[in-house]
Amino acid sequence: MSLTIKLHHVNSTTTQAHTTKIKKSNYTTKFHFKPIYHSNLLTPIVQFERKIQPLSQKSSKNSLMVKSSLIEPDGGALVNLVVPESQRELKISEAEAMAKVKLTKIDLEWVHVISEGWANPLKGFMREDEYLQSLHFNCLRMKDGSLVNMSLPIVLAIDDEIKEKIGGSESVALVGPNGDLVAILKSIEIYKHNKEERIARTWGTTAPGLPYVEEVITPAGNWLIGGDLEVLKPIKYNDGLDHYRLSPKQLRNEFDKREADAVFAFQLRNPVHNGHALLMNDTRRRLLEMGYKNPILLLHPLGGFTKADDVPLDVRMEQHSKVLEDGVLDPETTIVAIFPSPMHYAGPTEVQWHAKARINAGANFYIVGRDPAGMGHPTEKRDLYDPDHGKKVLSMAPGLEKLNILPFRVAAYDTVENKMAFFDPSRAKDFLFISGTKMRTYARTGENPPDGFMCPGGWEVLVKYYESLQAEDSMQKQTVTA
Amino acid sequence: MSLTIKLHHVNSTTTQAHTTKIKKSNYTTKFHFKPIYHSNLLTPIVQFERKIQPLSQKSSKNSLMVKSSLIEPDGGALVNLVVPESQRELKISEAEAMAKVKLTKIDLEWVHVISEGWANPLKGFMREDEYLQSLHFNCLRMKDGSLVNMSLPIVLAIDDEIKEKIGGSESVALVGPNGDLVAILKSIEIYKHNKEERIARTWGTTAPGLPYVEEVITPAGNWLIGGDLEVLKPIKYNDGLDHYRLSPKQLRNEFDKREADAVFAFQLRNPVHNGHALLMNDTRRRLLEMGYKNPILLLHPLGGFTKADDVPLDVRMEQHSKVLEDGVLDPETTIVAIFPSPMHYAGPTEVQWHAKARINAGANFYIVGRDPAGMGHPTEKRDLYDPDHGKKVLSMAPGLEKLNILPFRVAAYDTVENKMAFFDPSRAKDFLFISGTKMRTYARTGENPPDGFMCPGGWEVLVKYYESLQAEDSMQKQTVTA
Repeated sequence: MSLTIKLHHVNSTTTQAHTTKIKKSNYTTKFHFKPIYHSNLLTPIVQFERKIQPLSQKSSKNSLMVKSSLIEPDGGALVNLVVPESQRELKISEAEAMAKVKLTKIDLEWVHVISEGWANPLKGFMREDEYLQSLHFNCLRMKDGSLVNMSLPIVLAIDDEIKEKIGGSESVALVGPNGDLVAILKSIEIYKHNKEERIARTWGTTAPGLPYVEEVITPAGNWLIGGDLEVLKPIKYNDGLDHYRLSPKQLRNEFDKREADAVFAFQLRNPVHNGHALLMNDTRRRLLEMGYKNPILLLHPLGGFTKADDVPLDVRMEQHSKVLEDGVLDPETTIVAIFPSPMHYAGPTEVQWHAKARINAGANFYIVGRDPAGMGHPTEKRDLYDPDHGKKVLSMAPGLEKLNILPFRVAAYDTVENKMAFFDPSRAKDFLFISGTKMRTYARTGENPPDGFMCPGGWEVLVKYYESLQAEDSMQKQTVTA
Repeated sequence: MSLTIKLHHVNSTTTQAHTTKIKKSNYTTKFHFKPIYHSNLLTPIVQFERKIQPLSQKSSKNSLMVKSSLIEPDGGALVNLVVPESQRELKISEAEAMAKVKLTKIDLEWVHVISEGWANPLKGFMREDEYLQSLHFNCLRMKDGSLVNMSLPIVLAIDDEIKEKIGGSESVALVGPNGDLVAILKSIEIYKHNKEERIARTWGTTAPGLPYVEEVITPAGNWLIGGDLEVLKPIKYNDGLDHYRLSPKQLRNEFDKREADAVFAFQLRNPVHNGHALLMNDTRRRLLEMGYKNPILLLHPLGGFTKADDVPLDVRMEQHSKVLEDGVLDPETTIVAIFPSPMHYAGPTEVQWHAKARINAGANFYIVGRDPAGMGHPTEKRDLYDPDHGKKVLSMAPGLEKLNILPFRVAAYDTVENKMAFFDPSRAKDFLFISGTKMRTYARTGENPPDGFMCPGGWEVLVKYYESLQAEDSMQKQTVTA
């Protein structure tokens, strides 16, 4: 039995379509990409039945000649909002004369995100028209009538006092948490920050205890200020990890250099276990089977704000390194980089942002698993989001049509095979689900997870981290007791 | 000084564009259509710069030959989900054998709405894919990739017990509040009803006291059931107002019969005062100035569920009749009909539904004023929505591009001219804002509103209604005392 899968190949000059036959038995038992069938109003979609980069467009040997064009950035060209060095001094002196808006650490992460084009075609913090479109439609309309996805409001809040100081000015200077001049915001627009509405429409709840809300929104001012950014110099963190912080432009160059004919992105904010690795390696295998010669994995941990009990970035980066060292993922076909965005934990709304930003970085395939960007409900004993909604919403989101969404079945620990495997509901009792919380409990108590859950090198990193936490903790307790 | 306004004329066979010059001074002082300028990402839009029906397509004299084509229904053709009389008996006996779902009065209003094509192209209560798109994107993707607007989830809730009874059935019978068989729901899909998320994403708040939430959602079951509707006979209310309940098809026929070359819809749930009339008459005048020969007003009061302190439908219909009798609106160029939808009071989200449904009824212009579908915040002393957000969101909403949105400045009572007039901020102190609450207080206390606020015949209807309420009230009190 065979299943016909249409590959629509599109590039800037030609449009072709051809048909590849893949055995259905393979598809269902080995593909693990769950096809999503839309309702009566919608085309039945098999996930690979999307626009896919033509194999015939495979580049020449000369990597310098390769055009970075697996997928176009939203809006056409990547923005670059960092002021050229030649103008820096002038711009700094202009900024010094302007009203100042002090940025929090997370505001600065957003400046970083916007400045490099992750949020393309956004050129600054949202004005009200963009904010409203994002909040109500999860997308922005472009001049040509097309839509780009934009599911999270990317906004800067100010309080009454700062608003007063700004008065009728057309521009303001943005000042980093350390007091250094970071950017100019031009042609500003100030509008009301209705926090309740923003929270309700972004998270689908207003329950207290949402990490981003408590950290960012609740303490913020009652006004939002939008405008165009001019960033005075590239944002750096000096935490020993800046070399991982590749911009969308740098990533696109890297994919070109490696002559990638497909790039598949994997977003994560947790240590990589062998279930994740299974998804990634399986995707690569299937892309090869489809005829791609050189699919490249973008292993793309989120580097901005995360909630207090998530594993910190530096530990995760060390853990990811071990996973590549231990050969769980192939360094030859994997690029590890940091995605500088802060985390919202906004489930189906946020997963669109995670996917959209990777389009801008040149990924044309996006892996999505169970409950992406989800968490437990802050006040009720349940998941905040239906674990299937993330992939459903992602596959239907306006502005993401050009991205190939790869929804995966959930992986769990198979106690018969003693390895991470795709969950098989027909023998559910053989499978062990190891949640993030459970994994952290193992590491904290020094108990080993089942063999084959994670590579030993990676596990060791986690154990050490939790040991250091406990040492710190008992040190503090001693200090208090003394 | 002149302002160039492009009229893009589109019909099914040709696409033309020509340019009309309108004096800017007229535009700003007499047009009262506030142009909305989009941000840097968006085309500056003057509201009339939209697709407008070609004047050249003006119909022949023979009204029977006129095609109903000022604006296409969403999805192409109007659905008609009422079973043909020849099949009725058969369908009823099929329905009798099915598991039954009891409808509330408001569920039945939705069956009515769906069955006539107000929610085109929806063919029944939403399945989960449609529900999620509505909730997250306020629009649905069609098979051809285009989007239709769909901002409110149109869903049917069931409880655990009914779900259990339905079991694995493919169809259920829907039973009206009086126990009569109303419809069959086919190819059903049952999915979770996450009330909190639905409320938060639809209203932008989860505060207690939202009328539709308290009436409909809170008491509803924890499951939603979607499917295709087969309605056993047209929905009638037998309240003496059914002749006002024209279906989208009947309205389109009526517009054709009158040889309308533009139809402008006015949604309302309140008595018509002279401020409303000013908006409507001004729109007609401007359309005539633009070259339309026969613009028809669709005065379209909402007829479904409204909150307890709104004026009831029968009183409003009587009041609207008086407004036409008193000559405030011209009966020759006005069609009064009932829009059968229930009211959500969901502001910017709901106004899209109000506009979208009127596309299906053949209106190609839609008037929007201050704070459409808004109300006071249920627990805070402020409007629930920013009064400008409705028109902003409406003018940017995906799927409404073909509709000409006419945003209006607010009208208020001009104490110098002694009439309702467009508010002039330069002499703000001359204007008196008469809210719905204030109007009701006047009517209840027997105090007359200022001259020129409402035509005397219309006002009398309201006064009588509130007198009857008070009589009822004191009767009840006497009964209690006795």
